[in-house]
Amino acid sequence: MEPLKVGLIGLGTVASGVAAVLTKNREEIARRITRTPIIEKVFVRSLERDNPYDLNMTTSIADITDHPEIDIVIELIGGIEPALTYIKSALSHGKSVITANKELIALHGNELLQLAKENGVFLRFEASVAGGIPILKLLREGLSANEIDTVMGIINGTSNYILTEMSHKGVDFDQCLKEAQAHGYAEADPTFDIKGIDAAHKLTILAATAFGMPLNFENLYIEGIDTITAEDIAITQEEGYTIKHLGIARKSKQGVELRVHPTLLSKDHQLAQVDGVLNGVYVAGNAVGEQFYSGRGAGSEATASAVIADLIEIIQNKSRNHSAPALGFLEENLQELPTLPAKAFSSRYYLSFKYSDNLMSNSITEALKKVLLDAEIRAEKIKVYDQYQQVILFLEKTVQENVENIINNAMLIKGIEDSKFIRVE
Amino acid sequence: MEPLKVGLIGLGTVASGVAAVLTKNREEIARRITRTPIIEKVFVRSLERDNPYDLNMTTSIADITDHPEIDIVIELIGGIEPALTYIKSALSHGKSVITANKELIALHGNELLQLAKENGVFLRFEASVAGGIPILKLLREGLSANEIDTVMGIINGTSNYILTEMSHKGVDFDQCLKEAQAHGYAEADPTFDIKGIDAAHKLTILAATAFGMPLNFENLYIEGIDTITAEDIAITQEEGYTIKHLGIARKSKQGVELRVHPTLLSKDHQLAQVDGVLNGVYVAGNAVGEQFYSGRGAGSEATASAVIADLIEIIQNKSRNHSAPALGFLEENLQELPTLPAKAFSSRYYLSFKYSDNLMSNSITEALKKVLLDAEIRAEKIKVYDQYQQVILFLEKTVQENVENIINNAMLIKGIEDSKFIRVE
Repeated sequence: MEPLKVGLIGLGTVASGVAAVLTKNREEIARRITRTPIIEKVFVRSLERDNPYDLNMTTSIADITDHPEIDIVIELIGGIEPALTYIKSALSHGKSVITANKELIALHGNELLQLAKENGVFLRFEASVAGGIPILKLLREGLSANEIDTVMGIINGTSNYILTEMSHKGVDFDQCLKEAQAHGYAEADPTFDIKGIDAAHKLTILAATAFGMPLNFENLYIEGIDTITAEDIAITQEEGYTIKHLGIARKSKQGVELRVHPTLLSKDHQLAQVDGVLNGVYVAGNAVGEQFYSGRGAGSEATASAVIADLIEIIQNKSRNHSAPALGFLEENLQELPTLPAKAFSSRYYLSFKYSDNLMSNSITEALKKVLLDAEIRAEKIKVYDQYQQVILFLEKTVQENVENIINNAMLIKGIEDSKFIRVE
Repeated sequence: MEPLKVGLIGLGTVASGVAAVLTKNREEIARRITRTPIIEKVFVRSLERDNPYDLNMTTSIADITDHPEIDIVIELIGGIEPALTYIKSALSHGKSVITANKELIALHGNELLQLAKENGVFLRFEASVAGGIPILKLLREGLSANEIDTVMGIINGTSNYILTEMSHKGVDFDQCLKEAQAHGYAEADPTFDIKGIDAAHKLTILAATAFGMPLNFENLYIEGIDTITAEDIAITQEEGYTIKHLGIARKSKQGVELRVHPTLLSKDHQLAQVDGVLNGVYVAGNAVGEQFYSGRGAGSEATASAVIADLIEIIQNKSRNHSAPALGFLEENLQELPTLPAKAFSSRYYLSFKYSDNLMSNSITEALKKVLLDAEIRAEKIKVYDQYQQVILFLEKTVQENVENIINNAMLIKGIEDSKFIRVE
């Protein structure tokens, strides 16, 4: 079989996974395609490093992006720069590019897709979202007959691991974060994961692929998990809910909601059962109805599985003119859709109000009922948790603007010291 | 946009779904492709019939399979003949074919794939398995970097509906079947569904796509759900299990297990929670780990979603030489794998023994323990259900041959009148 020469940028966890999977599944992969992928060279910052797969290392990026025999470049260093410059260079030199870099695709994907088109090459990024779950292929091809109206999922394994541990052990966020760091499930600087930024990058890519819109990170609403307390988890568990950090993309006639935040899910919701570092994605399409997918969202070989699937697809399709467009829709047919502001987000809501004096819980409850009456919003439930000094409410479906007004008015009630709301799906 | 002319064979439920989805999602689909699919003609047995989408009907099959302007033929009549003859004719006339016909693909797929190859056209059948879940695309493309070792799923909605109703209502098989027929979830002749034959057709296609082997229906082991009683369900529910009808394809060094039968699943198993007419599929690959997918397994528009996804893919890829092979592996690289006989199936097992006289339950239990001791097989649990006059056992993982020996010896025990085993996953 004629070899197909591939250049790797980076030799970290995922790159090692790519080398490992290409090695162990060499025969199985060879049964699928007429050309054998060979890692011709790998770009590293320093040659003084481990090289367990005995790859041909270089510290010159041009050896990859401008190599005359390399057809496909796989970028696995992450972050914006120098990855952006490297990918632009590879595309400009007529090489197809595969990347797992969600941040780069979310922020610069439109520009890179345009460059890939101008150069007649592929740009693929299945590994950027939900690791081993082929969710982009599903949206782009498997469900291509549908108008998709919802994509909703657990797409950050670190947050999900921390929330799962908090739920199972009843301990607070800080302690779980430390444990996650000790286990290698959270970075030394966990900001992107726990603040929801990583999930937001991935949701940007999911929404573009589901709805056929340009990648639009700017208008995304983002909350992390760092505001969730052990008390929130204890109370909502007692109410029959699990708190999960979700990315939600929803299309309606008014526009698209693009949001990332902690969410209450009924315990029998399929996403509520996606625990630990797993990812899960729910999709609703207007022909197929509801679908659900789960699997590993990260890890060396699971992510490599997505990278190599892109590689096999490029080898099979041979030309971008014989394949599905990267976002599933022809670039010239992507449609800008208005993104709704947070105050327009519609869902059920969970509210909790802290008070300092247990003797006041009855009067606070009555005052809260009056606030709801004035707002003409119905509470499905109002309940006092004396042990946590909280009154909690479940509101019927409404827009967030109404919830914010209720909270503003409730904060004027004597004895209420703090408030919080969490959206309910 | 240049039209692409499609011919339909059949105008039943799925064909109406295809017309409906092509109509309602016309604009969304047009954003994906450079040619517009147009249903040029539909083959029907009689022109005296409803035609809600005002399609151009014909009773001459040659108007479809030998139409000079039709590029793609969609076969939706089901069954072997005349579908086989029609599809062969279409392929021979150089037309790509899409079908939802699992029986035909399971039994004649090898021959049809060869014919498609000789004529340089596509043969696609995503809709043949698990309705709207793009499971073939997942196995063929999304997980193409993996060596797949297990595909296991609920792939017959009728059986799953009946088992779900039996579980929820505690009623017997016959009554649930009648209700399923009344609701339109089971055919007047339900044999293919309740005897496991439909699931076996689908498993044949799943196994070929997962393992890269020719379609092999002959060696499949098949049990239906018609032997499951309300008592079986009541007892196993009390033991923490749900009975599901599964198709299981598993590859090991010894060969492949291809089997369709009722199975006990722990209640927290993802497949245990796939209820009613839904389908669910579990896949394990050696890079990606475990994945799970669920969604509608049948229905007009869900099945049409899969048919139209195939259609869009053919339009995008343009030529079979620029696409993944139909089974994911190049036809010349499919490998015959030895299929293991039922006696070699390895799993945990649930056994139940009926007796007529409650006074005997202790002596029967002791005698059963002796049988196990002689066989050197450990029971994880032995329990008497007086109210059902049954002793039940859970055996540790073993091969079915041992289970059959144990049952043969147990049937010699005085007082045991009947026996049954169900595999446990």
